[in-house]
Amino acid sequence: MASGIEIERKFLLAELPPTMRLARREPIRQGYLALDGDTEVRVRITPKRAVLTIKSGRGGVRTEEEVVLDKRQGDALWELTEGRRLQKSRRQMRIDGHDVDVDEYAGALDGLVVAEVEFVDEESARAFEAPSLFVRELTGDPAYANRNLALFGLPADKPA
Amino acid sequence: MASGIEIERKFLLAELPPTMRLARREPIRQGYLALDGDTEVRVRITPKRAVLTIKSGRGGVRTEEEVVLDKRQGDALWELTEGRRLQKSRRQMRIDGHDVDVDEYAGALDGLVVAEVEFVDEESARAFEAPSLFVRELTGDPAYANRNLALFGLPADKPA
Repeated sequence: MASGIEIERKFLLAELPPTMRLARREPIRQGYLALDGDTEVRVRITPKRAVLTIKSGRGGVRTEEEVVLDKRQGDALWELTEGRRLQKSRRQMRIDGHDVDVDEYAGALDGLVVAEVEFVDEESARAFEAPSLFVRELTGDPAYANRNLALFGLPADKPA
Repeated sequence: MASGIEIERKFLLAELPPTMRLARREPIRQGYLALDGDTEVRVRITPKRAVLTIKSGRGGVRTEEEVVLDKRQGDALWELTEGRRLQKSRRQMRIDGHDVDVDEYAGALDGLVVAEVEFVDEESARAFEAPSLFVRELTGDPAYANRNLALFGLPADKPA
């Protein structure tokens, strides 16, 4: 039940790094229950658990609270997210001592690969040098926010 | 952790029934985290516990899911509700075999007294005859929805 302040930077990848293809991946489906200004409330369901997440704030620094749901509640709340859902597979790696989630999207977002790098403070976030396979920074880009990917699909400006 | 479908009718009271003045009352504060169409996400804090509630749907029949929060999470989410809060004291009674919550509002909503009658099915909801102290039905009236009371205060048409 990770909670509190989250500092991360987000990058577009041209493809899933070949060295990660065989890494363990966790299928994730998530849907948005409520979107209200800077606040979003989402349900995320993985094979292990269902979690309700409330995020508030913009850009690199956001407040995030997670509440674990039982299966019945996860399913009931999922029903309320129709038309605002996405699916992806998450793999995890380390770069320069930072935890990195690499998300390969599926369904309507097939072909999109995004990495989120987590930092312990803003100084290390600023100091991070992205490897060459990270083709563009997406931090704070609303078109690539998951809520907008779920609502509107792939951004038109995505490089092939 | 009551959850599922909720069938209720809501009424305006001219005042707190004198016979209830000494009944046990539970102080409630609630604030809205996200309001999005028919879906609302609120935090309710009582002396006993903090609960996150997701409601969806309109009028007399609504889907409602409740998730119990620990104290730290309740407080953290409460911080996100500024400008969208209300306070009331709840007393409970029975009328014709139905559970009734009588809410006496405080703060900016001082003087407002509302009763919510819960039913096991729509037939018994239709059959209910309100006692004379219930001066007006509010079921489905958006001005008296708690989310709007929290945002906009007392409706202008409230009888004195």
